[in-house]
Amino acid sequence: MAGYKAPLRDMSFVLYDLLQIDQYSNLKLFSEAPRDVVDAVLEGGSKFAEEVLAPLNAVGDRQGCVRNSDASVKTPDGFPEAYKQMSQDGWMSMSADPQYGGQGMPKVVAMAFAEMCSSANMAFAMYPGLTRGAYEAIAQGASELKSIYLPKLASGEWSGTMNLTEPQCGTDLGLIRTKAVPQDDGTYKISGQKIWISGGEQDLADNIIQLVLARIEGAPEGIKGISLFIVPKFLVKDDGSLGERNGYECGGLEEKMGIHGNATCVMHYEGATGYLVGEPHKGMRTMFVMMNEARLGVGMQGLAQASIAYQGAADFARERLQGRSITGAKEPDKPADPIIVHPDVRRMLMDTKVFVEGARAFAYWMAVQADLAEVAPDETTRQQAEDRMGLMTPVIKAYFTSHGVQAVSDALQLYGGAGFTREQGVEQTLRDARISMIYEGTNGIQALDLVGRKLAANGGRAVFQFFSDVDDFVSSHENDDAMALYVEGMKGALSHLKDATMWLMKNGMSNFDNAGAASHDYLELFGLTAMGLVWGRMAAVAKEKSGGGDAFYKHKLATAEYFFRRVLPDAASYVAKVKTGAEPVMALPAEAF
Amino acid sequence: MAGYKAPLRDMSFVLYDLLQIDQYSNLKLFSEAPRDVVDAVLEGGSKFAEEVLAPLNAVGDRQGCVRNSDASVKTPDGFPEAYKQMSQDGWMSMSADPQYGGQGMPKVVAMAFAEMCSSANMAFAMYPGLTRGAYEAIAQGASELKSIYLPKLASGEWSGTMNLTEPQCGTDLGLIRTKAVPQDDGTYKISGQKIWISGGEQDLADNIIQLVLARIEGAPEGIKGISLFIVPKFLVKDDGSLGERNGYECGGLEEKMGIHGNATCVMHYEGATGYLVGEPHKGMRTMFVMMNEARLGVGMQGLAQASIAYQGAADFARERLQGRSITGAKEPDKPADPIIVHPDVRRMLMDTKVFVEGARAFAYWMAVQADLAEVAPDETTRQQAEDRMGLMTPVIKAYFTSHGVQAVSDALQLYGGAGFTREQGVEQTLRDARISMIYEGTNGIQALDLVGRKLAANGGRAVFQFFSDVDDFVSSHENDDAMALYVEGMKGALSHLKDATMWLMKNGMSNFDNAGAASHDYLELFGLTAMGLVWGRMAAVAKEKSGGGDAFYKHKLATAEYFFRRVLPDAASYVAKVKTGAEPVMALPAEAF
Repeated sequence: MAGYKAPLRDMSFVLYDLLQIDQYSNLKLFSEAPRDVVDAVLEGGSKFAEEVLAPLNAVGDRQGCVRNSDASVKTPDGFPEAYKQMSQDGWMSMSADPQYGGQGMPKVVAMAFAEMCSSANMAFAMYPGLTRGAYEAIAQGASELKSIYLPKLASGEWSGTMNLTEPQCGTDLGLIRTKAVPQDDGTYKISGQKIWISGGEQDLADNIIQLVLARIEGAPEGIKGISLFIVPKFLVKDDGSLGERNGYECGGLEEKMGIHGNATCVMHYEGATGYLVGEPHKGMRTMFVMMNEARLGVGMQGLAQASIAYQGAADFARERLQGRSITGAKEPDKPADPIIVHPDVRRMLMDTKVFVEGARAFAYWMAVQADLAEVAPDETTRQQAEDRMGLMTPVIKAYFTSHGVQAVSDALQLYGGAGFTREQGVEQTLRDARISMIYEGTNGIQALDLVGRKLAANGGRAVFQFFSDVDDFVSSHENDDAMALYVEGMKGALSHLKDATMWLMKNGMSNFDNAGAASHDYLELFGLTAMGLVWGRMAAVAKEKSGGGDAFYKHKLATAEYFFRRVLPDAASYVAKVKTGAEPVMALPAEAF
Repeated sequence: MAGYKAPLRDMSFVLYDLLQIDQYSNLKLFSEAPRDVVDAVLEGGSKFAEEVLAPLNAVGDRQGCVRNSDASVKTPDGFPEAYKQMSQDGWMSMSADPQYGGQGMPKVVAMAFAEMCSSANMAFAMYPGLTRGAYEAIAQGASELKSIYLPKLASGEWSGTMNLTEPQCGTDLGLIRTKAVPQDDGTYKISGQKIWISGGEQDLADNIIQLVLARIEGAPEGIKGISLFIVPKFLVKDDGSLGERNGYECGGLEEKMGIHGNATCVMHYEGATGYLVGEPHKGMRTMFVMMNEARLGVGMQGLAQASIAYQGAADFARERLQGRSITGAKEPDKPADPIIVHPDVRRMLMDTKVFVEGARAFAYWMAVQADLAEVAPDETTRQQAEDRMGLMTPVIKAYFTSHGVQAVSDALQLYGGAGFTREQGVEQTLRDARISMIYEGTNGIQALDLVGRKLAANGGRAVFQFFSDVDDFVSSHENDDAMALYVEGMKGALSHLKDATMWLMKNGMSNFDNAGAASHDYLELFGLTAMGLVWGRMAAVAKEKSGGGDAFYKHKLATAEYFFRRVLPDAASYVAKVKTGAEPVMALPAEAF
């Protein structure tokens, strides 16, 4: 099984050549993270991911988590020590607010580190990932609770979770039954059953902070009666030390296809003490803040799994000797040529490569927008950044995970029979990655979010801004003949996207089923166009720098060309599918299936 | 977890409405299997698949196979009994030659039964599947050995395997090292290591007939020095009874992503007694006969896994209540609508449905060709049938398995989080199905077989015949306005396919890498066009019969329409990719990955 080697050169290309994050050094957030500091952080982070997390990945899959008879949960061997080291070495607090003990690094840097952790060990990385999510939700939604919980979550001393799903409700949270009964002291008693709670119980952290959606007695029906609560495993005394065990326990662990190292818990709450976060009945608002952040994180998992699968496949393709090149032996002194000489092997590698590198550039671009949305001095920049991020969150979540899984599957395919065996590790990567298309809102839900909410928000302001981002790219390079492939490609993709958008505006409002039927293909088209824009920008940078003799830029340019010639042509068929409307999709009665 | 319900109505539609196999009742093979017999066979077969095999599917996955300390292998609980029942009730001998104890049913009927078995329990069905393959190879290649081995393989009393792969060679069998030393008595001593041998050792049958590729001492290098041997687990005495144990053993079992119920063995041959099948050094010829049959069988596995996944997903979509239809509540008396009301859920169901039903019709059409290639009285019909089958074998293997896996993945997605848990069973289906893209020649190898061998064979005779099959469809329905969608669709698809074929003929010969780089997308285009032809024919039949008031035909027509409007548009992007040529695919040096 191949190890993991963090793609630091490519990350650095995205951060400094493409996004040029040093241009923001007028902002405190960025000025306190100059390039040498960022380089050192990513270098150190890569060692942690490669040396501590990666070796535990197969162990986690094989051992899985075990629920003991006392309802405690044992994570795989090595996980508790790795978690402790991650916390103590400060890796968990990277982007947290310095006032709560965080290191205040830009989100884009934290995302690069998170990508490494997820590539090295997705099941493990979910524990700190969800802890960061809980930190954000409490930072956004709570007030007096912040000083108690944020420093402990920032450091990772305590871990965090999200408790949304119940047996009768996943996507449709309006059906939540878990109830919260107000107490005289201002706390609530929480009772009900939650399922599929990642990290709901484990042996990594001293305390577990459950963020629980529940319905306060007498609350309105449906989604407008849902409140958010902090329910710690151990109650916190006034001096911040841990008190008695709260009234809940893990009722069982789910057996699942992958991410065995992450404990997926059934949670039984029986009058557990909970603390309201924000206002009553407004829990979904805070939860959505957390979910949007989490959705970008899940998109990044798709990229991260594709990245590790790509590395292994590339090594295998260079090493495995099998058959001869159809244009004549390339290594005649060996019994056979390495399989990388075969065009169809190249095709799978190139498809995977353009996805991984394009997705990385796209994700980091959005992470910079997340930073700018918070710290840019002018309102226009903040709003534009917010708009981009909001629009692209469902696109990144769904496009990255479905194409990420496809990329892992392509990588597995390249191994032939060896890919199907446990030994090479790539089959685990495929099993682990598959959940990313489902959790934090299935990809179908993301597509509905895009067409039903994001597209129309503020009169379509965000989508028109994206069109103008593409127009800017086109006009910047229109007079450069060497950029014709990219300019023409983006003109074509944009015209398809506008065509599909117009169709949706016209037909999606008159019959909502048209919007629903089109949503998947529209999101695909959107993701493809955004990937095109990112690859076009990378081509421009690489072209400019490729004169210097560094082969990296020449190869980047050739990779961009592959994307434009062999991936972008899919745009036309997405438009055709969007425009069929709901009729063929909905034609059959339910009993005909 | 949902059970399996054999789609007998749809099978009957394909056999009798679409293919009208009763038209061949002038042929003995078919006259001895009149409709009432076929109906009874499939009805009985469906009970066996549903009641005996399906309940063992999850058991097989969880228990897997175990190698005991004496190198014997224990299959999962219930497998030996099911195997014995399958053999004793005559299910294994369905299409075998009556002179060897078979029942002489047409291959197309045997394929329908094999589909049911594979849907119900893929890992189990591989044991009799490989036994049938061994039967065919011996029937084709051996002479005096037939009477010893064929009756026992036909009945399933003995089982069969294929031993091709070695650690240093999978696709490239020219690198085989296993050696065969001629003995004075005409037998050979076989020594070497084989890996990934499905069913190489097990506790199901009284004897295991290994078909082993090996190199006779002094044979020419490479693929032209490979011979095929029968190596029985127990030597067979002259009276047909079992003698001493042969000189080999199972050295270990592979841990793998899926098909845990099937024992994937490392085999150590140490001077084992082998019997040459056919001529020395001509083993690949016989092996290819067996592999072609096996490739159709593997394609059918893709269809079969998609079929069982589709059934479960359709049930789940009708039962799971979550959210409301965006056009207004459909079941207002329930807490939520069943998710089948959502267009994006429909899209996934419809995509899966059109694949399953189209693939079934396509596969059975080819199985009829396999029958006609053997029993048609006139040379022209036999040759055309042979041509169709040869051309379509790689297409069916690759297109059915890659789209079958995609269909299972779509079905899993529809369950949301539940799909990722073991409980529903669909995650096992996805893990099991994934091997079908790899074994019996990876899908990349199938694509090379299509462009490198099948296309050019006999001056392109087979491909021109396929073009004329499409032309026949077009001209038969061109004057029927109600068939315009199908006629125009097939005209367009054929024109794309011809365009891509011309490009290949022109550019693939001048630079073989162009053919290799185009092969995957060319095969996709070929498969899509053939699926279109099959769906067009089904539409014509359904249209004709839908007047009778049977909703089945109306639904079939609506399903055909979905295929033409929402799947066929992919043709254009495949052509675009074919025509990029090798340049963008091969641009990077190996070290740039």
